[in-house]
Amino acid sequence: MAATTSGKIDPDSRGVFIISVTPFTDDGDIDWPSVDTLVEFYLGKGVSGVTILGMMGEAPKLSDTEAAAFAKHFIERVAGRVPVVVGVSNAGTDNLVQLSKTAMDAGAAGVMVAPIAGLKTDVQIRDYFAAVFKRLGPDTPVCFQDYPMGTGVNISVPAFLQLVDEHPSLVMFKHEDWPGLRKLQQVRRACDGKARRRISILCGNGGLYLPQELHRGADGAMTGFAYPEMLVQLCETFFAGRADEAEDIFDSYLPLVRHEQQIGIGLAIRKEILCRRGAIASAAVRAPGLRLDRDDLEELDRLIHRLERRLAASARRPDIAA
Amino acid sequence: MAATTSGKIDPDSRGVFIISVTPFTDDGDIDWPSVDTLVEFYLGKGVSGVTILGMMGEAPKLSDTEAAAFAKHFIERVAGRVPVVVGVSNAGTDNLVQLSKTAMDAGAAGVMVAPIAGLKTDVQIRDYFAAVFKRLGPDTPVCFQDYPMGTGVNISVPAFLQLVDEHPSLVMFKHEDWPGLRKLQQVRRACDGKARRRISILCGNGGLYLPQELHRGADGAMTGFAYPEMLVQLCETFFAGRADEAEDIFDSYLPLVRHEQQIGIGLAIRKEILCRRGAIASAAVRAPGLRLDRDDLEELDRLIHRLERRLAASARRPDIAA
Amino acid sequence: MAATTSGKIDPDSRGVFIISVTPFTDDGDIDWPSVDTLVEFYLGKGVSGVTILGMMGEAPKLSDTEAAAFAKHFIERVAGRVPVVVGVSNAGTDNLVQLSKTAMDAGAAGVMVAPIAGLKTDVQIRDYFAAVFKRLGPDTPVCFQDYPMGTGVNISVPAFLQLVDEHPSLVMFKHEDWPGLRKLQQVRRACDGKARRRISILCGNGGLYLPQELHRGADGAMTGFAYPEMLVQLCETFFAGRADEAEDIFDSYLPLVRHEQQIGIGLAIRKEILCRRGAIASAAVRAPGLRLDRDDLEELDRLIHRLERRLAASARRPDIAA
Amino acid sequence: MAATTSGKIDPDSRGVFIISVTPFTDDGDIDWPSVDTLVEFYLGKGVSGVTILGMMGEAPKLSDTEAAAFAKHFIERVAGRVPVVVGVSNAGTDNLVQLSKTAMDAGAAGVMVAPIAGLKTDVQIRDYFAAVFKRLGPDTPVCFQDYPMGTGVNISVPAFLQLVDEHPSLVMFKHEDWPGLRKLQQVRRACDGKARRRISILCGNGGLYLPQELHRGADGAMTGFAYPEMLVQLCETFFAGRADEAEDIFDSYLPLVRHEQQIGIGLAIRKEILCRRGAIASAAVRAPGLRLDRDDLEELDRLIHRLERRLAASARRPDIAA
Repeated sequence: MAATTSGKIDPDSRGVFIISVTPFTDDGDIDWPSVDTLVEFYLGKGVSGVTILGMMGEAPKLSDTEAAAFAKHFIERVAGRVPVVVGVSNAGTDNLVQLSKTAMDAGAAGVMVAPIAGLKTDVQIRDYFAAVFKRLGPDTPVCFQDYPMGTGVNISVPAFLQLVDEHPSLVMFKHEDWPGLRKLQQVRRACDGKARRRISILCGNGGLYLPQELHRGADGAMTGFAYPEMLVQLCETFFAGRADEAEDIFDSYLPLVRHEQQIGIGLAIRKEILCRRGAIASAAVRAPGLRLDRDDLEELDRLIHRLERRLAASARRPDIAA
Repeated sequence: MAATTSGKIDPDSRGVFIISVTPFTDDGDIDWPSVDTLVEFYLGKGVSGVTILGMMGEAPKLSDTEAAAFAKHFIERVAGRVPVVVGVSNAGTDNLVQLSKTAMDAGAAGVMVAPIAGLKTDVQIRDYFAAVFKRLGPDTPVCFQDYPMGTGVNISVPAFLQLVDEHPSLVMFKHEDWPGLRKLQQVRRACDGKARRRISILCGNGGLYLPQELHRGADGAMTGFAYPEMLVQLCETFFAGRADEAEDIFDSYLPLVRHEQQIGIGLAIRKEILCRRGAIASAAVRAPGLRLDRDDLEELDRLIHRLERRLAASARRPDIAA
Repeated sequence: MAATTSGKIDPDSRGVFIISVTPFTDDGDIDWPSVDTLVEFYLGKGVSGVTILGMMGEAPKLSDTEAAAFAKHFIERVAGRVPVVVGVSNAGTDNLVQLSKTAMDAGAAGVMVAPIAGLKTDVQIRDYFAAVFKRLGPDTPVCFQDYPMGTGVNISVPAFLQLVDEHPSLVMFKHEDWPGLRKLQQVRRACDGKARRRISILCGNGGLYLPQELHRGADGAMTGFAYPEMLVQLCETFFAGRADEAEDIFDSYLPLVRHEQQIGIGLAIRKEILCRRGAIASAAVRAPGLRLDRDDLEELDRLIHRLERRLAASARRPDIAA
Repeated sequence: MAATTSGKIDPDSRGVFIISVTPFTDDGDIDWPSVDTLVEFYLGKGVSGVTILGMMGEAPKLSDTEAAAFAKHFIERVAGRVPVVVGVSNAGTDNLVQLSKTAMDAGAAGVMVAPIAGLKTDVQIRDYFAAVFKRLGPDTPVCFQDYPMGTGVNISVPAFLQLVDEHPSLVMFKHEDWPGLRKLQQVRRACDGKARRRISILCGNGGLYLPQELHRGADGAMTGFAYPEMLVQLCETFFAGRADEAEDIFDSYLPLVRHEQQIGIGLAIRKEILCRRGAIASAAVRAPGLRLDRDDLEELDRLIHRLERRLAASARRPDIAA
C-alpha cells in the first residue's frame, strides 16, 4: 500500500505509518545495528510509512544530538522506500524548529507536532500552532498529534478546523483522543475535500479501536504495535471492501493490542516482543523506564502462545473467523 | 457461585459483583419498574453480588433522597439472594456516613468508598480513611475502590497495606488502577492470609484485563458489563481450573468489553445494550450525559452482530476457541 | 454601595458580594444562630450582596436537604437588604435545577454556576451551559463562575462571549482564572455595552489582585475574606476616583489576604478569624477539612497583631500609606 | 551571608540562593554579555548562592548544548564567589546525569532535581530517586525540588525523610509545595540534627510566604525575584533576631512579590524589571512565552512607582513600618 506518490506526506497519505521504537543496548546507548534491522523488519511487514521520535520512541529521553543522529541514520537506512515522519515536539520552539530542519534536510517526509503541555484553551492552542507554523515555513508538512492523555491538551473540532483553514502545511491529523470516535468522524466530514480541503487522518492509541475508526473515515493508522503486519492486513482488507474480514483479523490480535496498550509498561512489552521477533537485539527501555519481571514475562508468554494458536487455527480453517 | 456464607462481604468474597446501572425514564426520573427487572436480569445471569451507586451508577447525579430510596428499593428487591454493596463516596464525610447507615440498616452487605478527589499523598489518604473508618464503626464492611483514573488519587501498595493492618473492617480491594497488574499481585501476595490477613480482591475497569487479573490472584470482578454472563462464566471456568477455556470465553466478548470501556460514552453504550436485552426500559443517561447518535448505534449494531455470530459459531464447534 | 435597584443581579451589579462561609457547630451540624450573626456581620460591613453555597461555603459537604434549608434561612434573614446569590453547581443537572428553583422561590437574586469537572473544550462547555440555561429558564439570572483551579475547566474568551451572546440570563462573570488579568480585561472590553451587551464582572481568588482587577475594569469582588470591610472600602474608594488611596488600604491587608489564599487550610484560617471577630460561634470546618494546630494559630496571631498595629498607625497618621 | 565554607552546598547552607533567569536577545539567542551583567547584579545584591537552569530559567527551552555552555559560562563568571547550583531535571536519566557531570566538572556546588512528571506514589518517587542517586554517585550534592504545582508530583513527609535516610548526598530541600507551611515544619523538625541528620531547607514559590517559612524553620530562600536585595535583607534581619523588622521589609515588597508570582506571565514581569534595573539587556522570553503588552506595562509601572514611594517613605521615617 503506497503512502503517497511524492516523498512527503500529504492530504492523501494513507495506510499504516508505524510508530517506531528506538532501540537501545542493555547499557542504554542507541543500538545502531538494531536500527537497521528494525527498519527492515517494519518495511518487511509492508508498512506505508514510519514515524520516529514519537512518545513511544522515547524521544524525550534522547539528547538533542542523539535525536538528530537517530533521525538522519533512520532516514538514510529507509532510503526513500517509504516516507519517514519525525516527531519534533519540544518545550522550546527553537529546539522544535532545529530538529525539523535537520530532519527535512535529511529527507524526512514531514514532522509530527503535539501541542505543548500547559495549553488550556482553543485560543492558546491556535496561537501556539500559528507561531510554530510560521517558524516551520510552508515546505514542512505537519502532522498534528491530538493526544490529550499524553499532553493534557484538548482541542475542540472547530478549533482544529480553524488550524486546517489557516495553515496549508497542516496535512495530517494523528487522532488519538480517547474516547474519540465522534471527533474523528467530525473532522473527517468537515475535511471532506469539498466544503473544506481534505486532510489525512491516521489513528493512534495502539490501534485499540482501529476497525471502528476505519468505518468512521480514518485513512489508516499511525501507531505502534509489535505485529505491524496485523495493522497492514487490517487496513488493506478494509480498503479492499472486506470490512468484516478485516475486523476478524483485528480481533485475533486484540488481546495483545489491549495488552500493549498499558501506559508505561506497554512499551516494555512491545520491545520484548520486537526483540523476540528479531527486530531489535535488546528489549531495554531507557531510564526511567520499566522492565518486565518474571510474572510479566509469563503472562506475555501465555498471550503470545494463545495468539499463535489462534493464527494457526485460522490458517487451517479459512472459513472460521479467528 | 456463592459470594459468602454470611450476608456481608468478607475477606473471602469472590465471584462477580456486577456494578449496577441506575435506570432512568426518558424524562430522567428513576425508573422503579426497571430497577426490578434489572435486579432479576443480573441475578438471572448468575452474579455473586451487586454493587449499586458506583460511578457507573450515576450516583453523583442522584439527590441524597433518591440515593437512599434507590438503595432501599434495590436491596429489598434482591431480598438477600446475593449481597448488595452500596457506593457511598461523597465530598462530605457526614453524607457518606449517613448513606452508609441507611444502606446497612436496609440490609446492605457493605459499602464501597473511594478516596475523595484532592488527596495527594499516602499520608493524606491514610488520614482520610482513618477518619472514615472511625465514623463507620466496626460493623460496616468496606470495599476500598482504587480508581485513580476517576478520582485522581493514587495510593501506593505499602500505604494500602497499612490501611489493611489498621482497619479490620476493610475487607475488599476493588482494583481498578490502570495499568495495575503488578499492583494487584503485590496486594495479593502481601495479603496472603499468613504474613498478613487475607482480603478479597475484585477487579474493575470493565474487566478489560480480567483473565490476566485472575492469573495474578484476583478473586473475581466488581465491574459493569452489559453481558454479565461472560464475567460469570469466565470466573467460574477459571476457578474450575480451565484457565485457557475461560480466556477463550473472554476473548469472544473482548471487542465489546473494549467498546464499553470508553469513558463517558461507554455508559450510554452499556445502557443501550441492557435496554435491548430487556433489562431496563430506557437507555437514558441522566444529564449531563451522552446519548448515542445514529453513527454510534450503527457501530454498536455491527459489534453486537459480530458477537452473536461468534457465539453461534462457538456453540456449533465447541472444539474451536472463539 | 447599592448592588442593583431590583432584587436580582443584573449586568450593572457592582460592589462586594461576599462569599459566605457556612457556620457549623463543633459537632459539624449547621449552626443556625451563627447564620444569623454572620448575616448581620456581613451586612454591618457594608457588603453589596452575599453569595452562599460556593466552594468556600463547603457546599459539596452539605446534604441536599441542608443546602435548601440553609439557602432559605439565609435569604429570609437577609430579608431583601442586599441580593443573595446561591451557588448551585452540581454533578447532576436535575439537582442543580432543583436547588435553583428552591433558591429563586425563596427570594434569591440569582444563581452561580461553574462548569462541571470533566469538560475539556470550549464546545463541551458551551453545550453544557446551553442545557443548563434551557433548564433554568429566562427568569433566573446566572453568574458564571470561571475558576479553573477548582474545576479543572478552562474556557477561552471567545467561547465565553458566545455564551453571553446566546443566553440573555447570563448577567455576571465571576472572574477567578489565575493568572487572569488579561482575560478579565478582554471580557470587559468585549462586553462594553456597545458592540456587545454589558455584563457584570466580579472577582474572586480571595481578592489577591483586586486593585489590578479594578484598574482593568472589574465591577467589584465576589470573594471571601475575613475582613470584608477592606474589600468594601477598597471598592468604594476606587470607584470614588481615588485609586491610589484604595490600593493603600488593600496593601495593609495584603499579608492576610495572601495568608487566607492557601487552598485548603485557608478556609480554616478564615473561619478562625470570623470566629474571633464574633461573626460565628465556632471555627469548625466540616469533615474532611483541616483544623488549625498550635503552630498555625501562633502564626495567625502574629499576622493579626501586625495588621492591627498597621491599622492603628494608619489611623494616627492619615498622610502615611499603611 | 556566607552560604557554606566549602565550595559545595551542604546541610548547613543558608541564606538566599537566587533562581537566575536565562537572558536572551530579542531574537531568542542566549545573551552572553547579559549573563555577565546578571551575575554581577545578583552578587551585588548580596545573595549567598545562585541556582541556574531551573524552571524559571527556561531550562526546558534550551538545547542540551546550550544548557551545558550556559552552566559553564555562568560558573566561570561567578568564579567561586558564591556556590552555583544547577538544575538538571530531565525526562531522561542519561541526560540528567550528563548535565550533572558537566556542571560538577565546571565547579558547580551541587545539582537540583525535581521528580519527573508522571510519578504518582511515594514508592514511585523513592524508586526514581534511588536510581538517580545511584547514577550521580556520592560526590554530587543534591537539592530535592518539591514543586507539585509544576511537576504534578506529590511526596509525603515520611517518604521524603526516607530519601534523607537512604541518600547521604541529599543535602537540601527546596520547599515549594503550596500550601506547604506545615510540610516545611515537619521536615524541619524531623531533620533536626539529632534524631535525624540535618538538611538545609530553602523556600521557593517566589518567596510569597517567606517570613512565615523562616518562622517555621527554613534556612532561607531559593527563589527568583527581581529585587533580590529584599530577600537578602529579610533573611539577614530575621536571622539577626529582628523578625518583625524583617517582615516589615518583606511587606513593602509584597505587592510585587505577589505580582511576579503569576504562573507564566510572572517570568515576563520579572525579566522586564531586571531589564529596567540594568541586570539584563532584553526582557525577551524564549518561545513559547508571553510578552507584556501595553496594559501589562502600565500596571507594572504603577506597582513599581508605589514600591519606590514606599521605600522612600520608609527611608525618611525609619520608625514607621512600610
